[in-house]
Amino acid sequence: MGVLIKNGIMPNGKRGTIYIEDNRIEDINGEIRKDDFVINAQDKLILPAFYNTHTHLPMTFLRGIAEDMWLKDWLERVVWPAEKYINREYVYWGAMLGGLELIRSGIAAVADMYFFMDSVAKALELLGLRGVLGTTIFEFPSPDAKTPEEAFKIVERLVKKYKNHELIKPSIAPHSIYSCNLEILQQAKEIADRYGLLIQIHLSETRWEVYEVQKRYGKRPVELLESIGFLDKNLLSAHAVWLTKAEIKTLAKYGVKVSHNPISNLKLASGGVMPYPEMKEYGVLVTLGTDGVASNNSFDMFEEMKVFAISQKNHRWDPTIAKAEEVFKVATENGAKALGFKAGRIEKGYLADLMIIDINRPHLKPFYDPITLAVYSMRAGDVDGLIVNGKPLMLNKEILVVNEEKTIEKAEKKALKLYEKIVGVVK
Amino acid sequence: MGVLIKNGIMPNGKRGTIYIEDNRIEDINGEIRKDDFVINAQDKLILPAFYNTHTHLPMTFLRGIAEDMWLKDWLERVVWPAEKYINREYVYWGAMLGGLELIRSGIAAVADMYFFMDSVAKALELLGLRGVLGTTIFEFPSPDAKTPEEAFKIVERLVKKYKNHELIKPSIAPHSIYSCNLEILQQAKEIADRYGLLIQIHLSETRWEVYEVQKRYGKRPVELLESIGFLDKNLLSAHAVWLTKAEIKTLAKYGVKVSHNPISNLKLASGGVMPYPEMKEYGVLVTLGTDGVASNNSFDMFEEMKVFAISQKNHRWDPTIAKAEEVFKVATENGAKALGFKAGRIEKGYLADLMIIDINRPHLKPFYDPITLAVYSMRAGDVDGLIVNGKPLMLNKEILVVNEEKTIEKAEKKALKLYEKIVGVVK
Repeated sequence: MGVLIKNGIMPNGKRGTIYIEDNRIEDINGEIRKDDFVINAQDKLILPAFYNTHTHLPMTFLRGIAEDMWLKDWLERVVWPAEKYINREYVYWGAMLGGLELIRSGIAAVADMYFFMDSVAKALELLGLRGVLGTTIFEFPSPDAKTPEEAFKIVERLVKKYKNHELIKPSIAPHSIYSCNLEILQQAKEIADRYGLLIQIHLSETRWEVYEVQKRYGKRPVELLESIGFLDKNLLSAHAVWLTKAEIKTLAKYGVKVSHNPISNLKLASGGVMPYPEMKEYGVLVTLGTDGVASNNSFDMFEEMKVFAISQKNHRWDPTIAKAEEVFKVATENGAKALGFKAGRIEKGYLADLMIIDINRPHLKPFYDPITLAVYSMRAGDVDGLIVNGKPLMLNKEILVVNEEKTIEKAEKKALKLYEKIVGVVK
Repeated sequence: MGVLIKNGIMPNGKRGTIYIEDNRIEDINGEIRKDDFVINAQDKLILPAFYNTHTHLPMTFLRGIAEDMWLKDWLERVVWPAEKYINREYVYWGAMLGGLELIRSGIAAVADMYFFMDSVAKALELLGLRGVLGTTIFEFPSPDAKTPEEAFKIVERLVKKYKNHELIKPSIAPHSIYSCNLEILQQAKEIADRYGLLIQIHLSETRWEVYEVQKRYGKRPVELLESIGFLDKNLLSAHAVWLTKAEIKTLAKYGVKVSHNPISNLKLASGGVMPYPEMKEYGVLVTLGTDGVASNNSFDMFEEMKVFAISQKNHRWDPTIAKAEEVFKVATENGAKALGFKAGRIEKGYLADLMIIDINRPHLKPFYDPITLAVYSMRAGDVDGLIVNGKPLMLNKEILVVNEEKTIEKAEKKALKLYEKIVGVVK
């Protein structure tokens, strides 16, 4: 099926026509050859959709149940006790609710780390979204695996099931250095290399982590990972805040990718601000992620871009750092690159992952420069349509792939049921 | 006219009925006595509307024309050259565009500082919004007054015109210590005292300002203002970032109010973060403002609350600072108090300034705690209705007071005309 988007405004501010064949952009401003499915984007802006490179999608269920707490309390008194009650079904409905929010926020793809990732895959496939889905590995029992070996088997099953799938890419996610011993990290790396998987890990998120790793191993986190041969092009490290310049150079040397999560970092009060100027200087590929909504509390990549830009500017006392154009690239093209998709640009041959923005709103006027508006003035509510892999998932603010109202209702019922179970346990 | 809002969810999470008579909340959950105008808020949340305590409303016209620049360049190369071209008409349409955005963002009132404030008053009155409107005073010529004396006369004319007006309160706004000599500051204070006006001033926004004032006067800004008898209950100081503990104690002693503008401060890279914990400790009334959209770039108080909370947490390495409940109070009740309105709470006898939120959205589910959701997950696009001074200005996302589409169109045309004039001058 061909999809033709006409009369839209392109990222450069000029009107244009986009022709999509199968899942790719086949032509820009070319002659109209077919029009199987025509989208009239009159007075609407077309932008590449977002690639959100660090999420815990099913944690939508824990949105807002515990706030303004120390990270240690939040994990030990809320998140981990709550996660004892989750199962395949909760994960599915949590991912469905999160997935609807992704669509409404213009997000085409996530790199996700959680448990029961077959349920997350099922939800994203149904919704038509892309997922690089990392089964989380701990050295202790997790909700879906009593041992790391069990978790590795889950990864291998998902690898077989989703071989060459257009939307779903299985991934492996050793949670962090402090929750996985070196043997587990090395086993995860072997599996990733064997099957060509992306590895997702939390890295140097807090100062505590750095001290803990130094105490245990006598090395800083990045030095330790280098020493065991873990650093590689297939590594996506989330957070990466507490790093020395030498560590950043090491990440660059091995082609390690970084997912920057500014809102979560600020909200959890880990202190410090991710060293973006140095990452840029040494050539680390920086991408943007929201983290889970239990620590954000939304999947709004517009807000994430804005907070990224302004927190960098303030931290370095330099408003010329993290300019609008480059921030937008980080949230789209860089993310796609890190996840291994040729997307994030509106160009012939790129994957058709696009969002349509309703610009006829007082807060988006006057309409001078689309990218400046996207980074500093837009919000997720302005997304009018989303096309992923060539398929429209939402048009004119209407979700086309599932009954949104019923899905929200069902998911909320499940969440409240879980909440009842954990309400005595948490806080 | 009585207005009855039924079936809505109140800030405490319970369903309730609100009865408005004239411009006040007359009854909560009482018997239904009249229902001149019934609003069915089924499955919608009712919250007090925002009080935005620092804006430059007509600067919507400059939204996005120059970004990622040093403050000095931004002022000298963009804002001030552009403002040479503004006049009463531009200001009116800029304020109309800004006012529409205020309505759509759930903002009932602004404390505004600009020029041609009669035009801003006209726009806000037409839209039904509250404004504490400060004519800006400089020691040099401004767009609407060649001398401070002319500006004082403008203030006096507005005082007469808007005496006892329910929506519009004239105010006087000596721009800053570095742009007004001491004599002007004292004259402004005298006029404010004579007519019972609120004084608005930019105070200790940047380190540069503190050094400049110290160099010129041998005192820090707050010390200087104290020495000339300027500090008083009728002073609202915007920004107030670069303060010593002694200065904060002094502000508290005189009952000076503060408008905190976190997004603008971060974006302009002034460095530092407003000392909120100390303000709270010493009893300074802290309120929240967006600043103008040329340095924000939107009037989204939800985003402002979130950035306020997370920037404080990160800066002090303490997630328990700026909790959701208190952040919401800062953005509503504290703002109303600072501007002299009995509003910001849904209680009998309070002014009926309320917003209605559409909560049936994936990013607002599960629905546990309304205030946590408001601070960390909502955005301006979720506002479904706004009632100010008892009058519905927007319901079911439809603006009721003007033709929105035509107003936006006209305002944008004006903005582009201004842009044409200044495009050769700026950058």
